[in-house]
This record gives sequence, structure tokens and C-alpha cells, in this order.
Amino acid sequence: MNDLIERMMIRAFSNPLLDRRHDGAVMPCEGGRLAYATDSHVITPLFFPGGDIGALSVYGTVNDLAMCGARPKWLSAGFILEEGFPMEDLWRIVVSMSLAAERTGVSIVTGDTKVVDRGKGDGIYINTSGLGYVPDGVDIAPRRTAEGDAVVLSGDIGRHGIAIMALREGIGLESSISSDLAPLNFMAEDLVEAGLDIHCMRDLTRGGLASGLCEIAATAGVRVRLEEDAVPVRPDVMAACEILGFDPLYVANEGKFVAILPQEQAEMALSIMREHEQGAEAAIIGRVSDTGRSGTVTMTSSIGASRIVHMMSGEQLPRIC
Amino acid sequence: MNDLIERMMIRAFSNPLLDRRHDGAVMPCEGGRLAYATDSHVITPLFFPGGDIGALSVYGTVNDLAMCGARPKWLSAGFILEEGFPMEDLWRIVVSMSLAAERTGVSIVTGDTKVVDRGKGDGIYINTSGLGYVPDGVDIAPRRTAEGDAVVLSGDIGRHGIAIMALREGIGLESSISSDLAPLNFMAEDLVEAGLDIHCMRDLTRGGLASGLCEIAATAGVRVRLEEDAVPVRPDVMAACEILGFDPLYVANEGKFVAILPQEQAEMALSIMREHEQGAEAAIIGRVSDTGRSGTVTMTSSIGASRIVHMMSGEQLPRIC
Repeated sequence: MNDLIERMMIRAFSNPLLDRRHDGAVMPCEGGRLAYATDSHVITPLFFPGGDIGALSVYGTVNDLAMCGARPKWLSAGFILEEGFPMEDLWRIVVSMSLAAERTGVSIVTGDTKVVDRGKGDGIYINTSGLGYVPDGVDIAPRRTAEGDAVVLSGDIGRHGIAIMALREGIGLESSISSDLAPLNFMAEDLVEAGLDIHCMRDLTRGGLASGLCEIAATAGVRVRLEEDAVPVRPDVMAACEILGFDPLYVANEGKFVAILPQEQAEMALSIMREHEQGAEAAIIGRVSDTGRSGTVTMTSSIGASRIVHMMSGEQLPRIC
Repeated sequence: MNDLIERMMIRAFSNPLLDRRHDGAVMPCEGGRLAYATDSHVITPLFFPGGDIGALSVYGTVNDLAMCGARPKWLSAGFILEEGFPMEDLWRIVVSMSLAAERTGVSIVTGDTKVVDRGKGDGIYINTSGLGYVPDGVDIAPRRTAEGDAVVLSGDIGRHGIAIMALREGIGLESSISSDLAPLNFMAEDLVEAGLDIHCMRDLTRGGLASGLCEIAATAGVRVRLEEDAVPVRPDVMAACEILGFDPLYVANEGKFVAILPQEQAEMALSIMREHEQGAEAAIIGRVSDTGRSGTVTMTSSIGASRIVHMMSGEQLPRIC
């Protein structure tokens, strides 16, 4: 079976650098700065409207690299299979990974597969790590977030988490709500290449928009103020959130991010995002303020009431990614 | 709990590049060639004589990089924890990883932790990936293995697999046989820096010496001939193999490798290995021959009988690493 799996991987991920018969890949490297990220993917179910664990494992790491301002280039893939996992499902997943890699311009250059006994896994877990070049002069990090910055959101929130929960709960929303799973590297690269002085970018996965912004506010020691009405949420997602008892601010996304940059560059960032299909609903949703308590996020509602947005406590949706 | 885990990781792996509050690490890179490897670690039990899953996950990837001729430099770490995994065990494991990283001169610069429900994991699984620089002029790969090469083994075989199996089977060998888990990068770097024209190196993990050499022979299309008497196996390991019904040639190691290089450089390689504590038992165990069937490994016994060494079929010892 190991041999079958190995042949499957080599066939799916074929590229000149991939050499599963050696202990690692050797790649020529230009020099400069490299971004390096890793994520393990344990999502359940493995296949969902809008994607599967394979595409997720590629886009997840590609997006993490993109949020560092990097051009993603190489990925590693580590599989943990539960004994008895159907080979046809594995093939479907590796083909999906291969397509996702091709779509984002990355190569899967090194990999590993382990098999664990029945009842010691859950079908398949996939770890990916990734590398990309950070262009000269780019410095994107939470600590750079500063007073006077605008917060630009790349689109409507909550679709990934709701698609997964609807499927798990069997509440029949599957037909209307798909995951927003998508690569963010092209949109992020366009922002970087336009010469915008992006201070921070963050994709809004586990814990959603609220947790992403709370982390940034805490790390940078700044105050973030959001306008509730400015945050795009699709009506069907909002309705599903009400049924399921979730706040869309905390629901995971897999194809959305915020860019935080000087106020005067916000409109340009917005127009660049909107040139992309994934960014059609992009919006300026808030700003980094000089009033209020440092390290906090507050949100002003349509009737003018202001509330503190807390970091998500505990995990609202386990195994969402 | 996520917050507790994050604080634990930051404390254990503290270094300037590690920034778990961002999506990835950004590292200055010299240019040249990079080696890139990944491994998931699913060993059971987690703690064993001579090591634990934490040290294994660091040395495993460090050793893969070393086998590419690289100087290991950066690691990523991805944890999959089963709900309820004791925090004190996690702490013990991350401290062990931290010490192993320090000992080998690598930094753990980026990481991720996922928690899965009870019964969907087995305590902890750890994926690491790693990066290192390959010095100019170094070209180490199975396909370079050529007729006239010598096969130099860095020490006695079979200890890791036997230590694990003895523990699992409870046959009371624990006191005498410990895993040989060790970093190989220093020994490998010394070989490379001595200017030896190393054609291939391979650490002898899953499937042991036999599988490693069979893979190399198949990839390079060469014939490898081993001398059975030249392969060092400790008497207690041999005795345990007999009790457990294993052939030491197929038993996993975690601190042994073969270097394949021109015959005339073999003695020098041997003396360099023997300067290291881990290489005290190093031996020239065979050669790449011009007779016999291409892609095969044969072994000559003390009484002169010759047999074909086959690739291990199936997995002799599941979850050995």
C-alpha cells in the first residue's frame, strides 16, 4: 500500500523538484527574504460544498504566505492516513491538491505519508508547510498597525464556517451556502505590487474577523474601531447564523482577509481588491483610532451603540480547518 | 486552552524569528540552494528509552536535510493533539524539541496546533518540516550512486526498532536496549566539508538498512553487494531480533546512515565517522558492483553464500517513527 500511495503522490504532484526517492528536495534559491508557514488540516467532513481538505491544505498555507506579503513558491505535504481510508478518496484529495497548487503557482516538492491504526485518526489529516519570497521593501506584520490606518476587508464573511456547520448539523443549507475557500495570493500580490504601504494583512480563518482583529490590536497595542453596517454578510449567512446561534464576526472564512494600511491609501486598496472576483464585496470597515483602550476592538452599530469585540473564548467551531 | 498552548510553545521555542502572532516567519536568506524536507511523527509509545516523539520530530527532519548534504537551519512544527492530552506531557515534549533544536543548531520559526476530538487521534502527532543550505558543489542524490562506489555504514543497526518493540511487547529488554536516536548533521557535515565526493547518503529509518539500499539500487539502477559479517549488530539487538522474529537488516534506526562514495575515499569517510561518538562502530559494509542484476541488493554471508535482499514488503513495525 505504501508503494501505491507513493506512486499516487508522484503522479498527482509531478514536478522536476519532487523527488520522493530522496530524503528532501533541493531548490535553487534567489536570496532575499523567505516567508515560511505551516498548518495542519483536520477538517471534518473532508468534502464540503466549495472544497475539500486537499484544496484547503494548499490554499491555507498559500494564504498564510500571502499574508506575509510573499509570493508562494514551494509546499511540503505530510499525510496521516487512518488505516482503511479509501484509496479513491485519497486520489480525489491529492488531485484537488494538485489543481490548487497549479492554480496558485506553487509546487509540492517534498512529502511524507504515515498510516495510523483504525480509531487513531479520522480518515486523513494533512499538514502543509510553504515557502515564498518576500519582495524587497515589504514589511507586513501586526506590530506595524498604527493610528490613522484603515481596515479594508476583502469580502463578505462567514461562509466557510456556515457551510461546514450546516453540513454537520444536516440543516439543509447546503444548496445555498458554499465555503468561500479561495487563494488570496493574487489579490495580496496586487496590493503589494501597487506600492501600497500595507502595515498588516491577516486571513480570517479560525475565530473569524473578530479574533483576527483582536489579535492584531493586542499585538500592536492599538485601538481598532469597526462600523457594523460596513461589514458585508450575505443574508443567507446571517439567517443561518441566527438559526445556529453564531455571531458572523466569529465564524471562520477561508478566502477573506483584512488589509490594514494608511487611511489615504484605503480607496486604492479597495479598488484593487474589487478587480478580483473574490474581492467584489470588499469594503472599508473601520480604522485604527487614537481614542479608547489600547489593544481593543470596538464596533459601532447602525443605531450608534458601541460595544467591545472580544477575542473568541474557546473554539466556537472545532475542526473547521 | 489554545492560549495556554500558544504561550507554552512561545516559551519553549523562543527565538527572534518565531512569531506565532503572525501567519508565518520571515527569514533573511543567503541564496544558493535550499534543501526542504518534511516528516509526520506518529510513534507509539510517545516516550521510549533513548528519546521521545519531540526529539524524534526534530532529529528526523534534521537528519533528512543532512542526508541532502545540507546544513539544517529552520524548522516548522505542526501539532495535532487529541482532546484531553495531558498538558504536562505536552510540556515535556516541547522542551525535548527545544533541546534537540538547540543541540543541532536549528530554530523552530513557525508552528501550528490543532486539537481533534477524543478517539480521533492518539495523544499527539507532530509534523515538522525543515530547511537548510546546501553548500556549493555538493550534489548528493540516489541517482549518483555508481559502479565502484563503497557503502559506508555509520554504526550498528536495529536499536531504535528493537527498543520500541520491546517496550510495546513488554518483554523486559528496556534496560539494555535504547533507541539510537541522534542527530546526524554534524557527522554528515564533516564528510561534506572534507571535500569527499559523496554520491548518496541515506538515513536508515523505516525499513532499515535493507530498504534504504534497495531504494537506492532501484533509483540508480545499480547492483549493491553487502558483506553480512561487516554489518555491525550488537549481540543484545541480535538476540532480541531472534526473540521477536525480526531481521535486523529491516529494523528501523534513528541515528544511522549510509554514505556511498568512490571506493578510494571510503577509508577517509570511515575515519571521519569514527571521530564522532555516534560513529564509533562505523564500517565499510559493501560496494556497488558491475556484476549481477541491475537495481538489486545482494548479501554474502560468512560461509560465502549469496542471497538477494528484498525491499521490505508491508510495514514490519507500524508507527515506529
